[in-house]
Amino acid sequence: MADQKANIGVVGMAVMGKNLALNIESRGYTVGIYNRSASKTEQVMKDHSEKKLVPSYNVEDFVKSLETPRRILMMVKAGKPTDAVIHELLPLLDKGDVLIDGGNTNFHDTMARNAELDKSGINFIGMGVSGGELGALQGPSLMPGGQKEAYDLVEPILTKIAAKAPQDGKPCVTYIGPNGAGHYVKMVHNGIEYGDEELIDESYNIMRNVAGISVDEMADIFKDWNKGELDSYLVEITADILTRKDDLGDDKNLPIVDAIKDRGNNKGTGKWSSEDALDVQVPQSVITEAVYARYISMLKDERVKASKELPAAEKQGNVDIPDKDKFVEEVRQALFFGKLMSYAQGFEQLRFASEANDWDLKFGELAQIWRGGCIIRAQFLQNITEAFDKDPKLSNLLFDSYFKDIAGKYQQSIRDVVAMAVQAGIPVPSLSAAITYYDSFRAEVLPANLLQAQRDYFGAHTYERNDREGNFHYTWYEEQ
Amino acid sequence: MADQKANIGVVGMAVMGKNLALNIESRGYTVGIYNRSASKTEQVMKDHSEKKLVPSYNVEDFVKSLETPRRILMMVKAGKPTDAVIHELLPLLDKGDVLIDGGNTNFHDTMARNAELDKSGINFIGMGVSGGELGALQGPSLMPGGQKEAYDLVEPILTKIAAKAPQDGKPCVTYIGPNGAGHYVKMVHNGIEYGDEELIDESYNIMRNVAGISVDEMADIFKDWNKGELDSYLVEITADILTRKDDLGDDKNLPIVDAIKDRGNNKGTGKWSSEDALDVQVPQSVITEAVYARYISMLKDERVKASKELPAAEKQGNVDIPDKDKFVEEVRQALFFGKLMSYAQGFEQLRFASEANDWDLKFGELAQIWRGGCIIRAQFLQNITEAFDKDPKLSNLLFDSYFKDIAGKYQQSIRDVVAMAVQAGIPVPSLSAAITYYDSFRAEVLPANLLQAQRDYFGAHTYERNDREGNFHYTWYEEQ
Repeated sequence: MADQKANIGVVGMAVMGKNLALNIESRGYTVGIYNRSASKTEQVMKDHSEKKLVPSYNVEDFVKSLETPRRILMMVKAGKPTDAVIHELLPLLDKGDVLIDGGNTNFHDTMARNAELDKSGINFIGMGVSGGELGALQGPSLMPGGQKEAYDLVEPILTKIAAKAPQDGKPCVTYIGPNGAGHYVKMVHNGIEYGDEELIDESYNIMRNVAGISVDEMADIFKDWNKGELDSYLVEITADILTRKDDLGDDKNLPIVDAIKDRGNNKGTGKWSSEDALDVQVPQSVITEAVYARYISMLKDERVKASKELPAAEKQGNVDIPDKDKFVEEVRQALFFGKLMSYAQGFEQLRFASEANDWDLKFGELAQIWRGGCIIRAQFLQNITEAFDKDPKLSNLLFDSYFKDIAGKYQQSIRDVVAMAVQAGIPVPSLSAAITYYDSFRAEVLPANLLQAQRDYFGAHTYERNDREGNFHYTWYEEQ
Repeated sequence: MADQKANIGVVGMAVMGKNLALNIESRGYTVGIYNRSASKTEQVMKDHSEKKLVPSYNVEDFVKSLETPRRILMMVKAGKPTDAVIHELLPLLDKGDVLIDGGNTNFHDTMARNAELDKSGINFIGMGVSGGELGALQGPSLMPGGQKEAYDLVEPILTKIAAKAPQDGKPCVTYIGPNGAGHYVKMVHNGIEYGDEELIDESYNIMRNVAGISVDEMADIFKDWNKGELDSYLVEITADILTRKDDLGDDKNLPIVDAIKDRGNNKGTGKWSSEDALDVQVPQSVITEAVYARYISMLKDERVKASKELPAAEKQGNVDIPDKDKFVEEVRQALFFGKLMSYAQGFEQLRFASEANDWDLKFGELAQIWRGGCIIRAQFLQNITEAFDKDPKLSNLLFDSYFKDIAGKYQQSIRDVVAMAVQAGIPVPSLSAAITYYDSFRAEVLPANLLQAQRDYFGAHTYERNDREGNFHYTWYEEQ
């Protein structure tokens, strides 16, 4: 063990833990590192012998290697492995120490752990980390939630290792809120990411299969889009992806996307965000359709069979696009409109959860720390920050003038694109969810009056009235 | 206590428990009844003094009043009240007794209770009951899951009290499967019910707000629809509801639906079914959109504000319907097509769950026992039973010839209706989910290839290839 105590310890030397440790070290800190199996730690020390890393090969040495109050960042698998590390560390920790879970943990687990550890006086921060391996090394977006006093103890480090927003250089980290707030916000971030990806993928699919635009042309289109209001990491990499050729097959001119099988995998966080939307009772249809789009893509064998056996649309692959440039611009507007609805839903979900859990989330700050480092980083997040700056109590982003203005300008495009895709038999689950959400949201009267009548009819569930307060039951038939 | 032992006991004398007890008694059984507070039991005895009911006022007497092996049906609130009753009964029961939970219980809880009680040799059946208060009295649809030997002990009673299918008089009950299978199937039933209701309500809304069809005219339309392939309880009561006038307001000619506030409530089972679809990874978009439609309807104040502040569609309320009859027929076809997709999704969900839990669900039998008694009872369920009779291993209903045929004949109508509604600014979340599901399902290639490229780009999640097996990673940029 080195003479100098380490400023912070990192448990778990898989790629995310290793890269975060290196990131922290690069900002002038001494970092204690520990991994259950020694070989990973040894490899890190071999590759980075010149760095201020203090390796330990058992948990007692690791804890002793840290200055107090101890700051320990766990980068291990969510679930039981996280519990195992906590239980290993717990007897060795003192009151006031700070344990940080930077894993992909469900916020329910974080809430339970925070409450449990709080009893022993141990601070517990659940921290969402976005940006992938490269982000971890160079600057991720960080979403820490837990005791505020614990956050204050780690803030200097987190501020230094976080990404800096391109707009103003501000670090992409802030105190999110108590207990599970950090992992919750990360979960919604991931849901939004699913939505962004699906909307891009549907746009690509429409341009390709309706307008017959080639992959090469499309690379230029996305590159062009990335210069405007759609400026974002995901549009940028999409443009790049579409330029790439297959590196493994026989045809070296084959776009790599055409070598890749269309089975969209998932690691569960998008699913969590939709399950939570169902729980907190917020319509989050754009993201949920994106989750379902991945599920249906996985049913590849069924789909291939269905493509042969089920009748196609009359106009399948036979839509006339008289002006291709105009059409591409309509698709761009549809995509951006869809993105607005997805974020409006996601931020409404955040608002409902904040109220339900007493988190006092600062919505504008969330958009702010997503401007850099994370997968959904985008120019457009600045507009969200500004919307909440103008009105911190904004109930839905659609009421902000920027959103309202875009909705007004672009809605005809998404209507045209969705109507056309539906006629042409091209699947647009998230785009159509976006426009039906808008139409539901701005419907003064929805047919839920008929629904309430049905529920009162078969289940005596009662109904509310337009002309007075209270719950009423109609005599639909003679009660027995 | 009466001399004769009761054949079965019912705990919980709220309306569902009382009505089921009366239903059982009417089939020639002696029924022991018990309720935590004596007053409800006393009231039942006062109202039905001539019936073969054996009241008890403490749990010991209640258990003693039953013949062995004991059969006890609990009709109490799901959750803690159910646990409380189980814990009260448990010390008094013997091996081989059968406890039935007929409450609105989440299947996860039923699985846990079944496993726990099984250790003491007590049989536990989780039984879905559908049909509301009247169904409980006259004949519900019953979905019992648990030990098969326990089911055999209660089968004679359940068979007698269940509804009889109008098609062939068969009782609407069958052994569903082990542990949580019964409550699971009831949950999916309720999800399907949400979908059915939303599809009807969207159809009503389109006819009313696009074609300007009056409530009176629409009552006749639904009545007419109920004579054909849409023949179902929900269409029947919708027709009836639309004939009814307000009984409380000043205007006695006001259709009752126009007195009812458009806030669609829910009791959570639809939500469970969507959460579960997300869990088992089945696209269940039609039902999920129905759940979200209720949520958005609850945001009445926001909607009223949005209806004034957000820009309307260019063609809002301004679509030309040259031939009203043709339009109404298109809406009918769209509704039926939507219903088919909803059931295709629901039955795929059942299949996934059956495989995951080793339940060996008999899908055709499920459709069979839903033909009477329950809220979704419909002529159309016969077609589902027949589809699974023809092919018990059918992976998706859409591969059955009846479904395929309807899909072919009606798809243009739903495309036209959805396209028109989207252009007119009329919300059609479930109808559009239905057609986009169909288009996704029959897409040989979905844009999930681009998604996998994106995921591999930012997260090194790897991708599969079209030309060979395995997981691959593309070198998108120089690794650090």
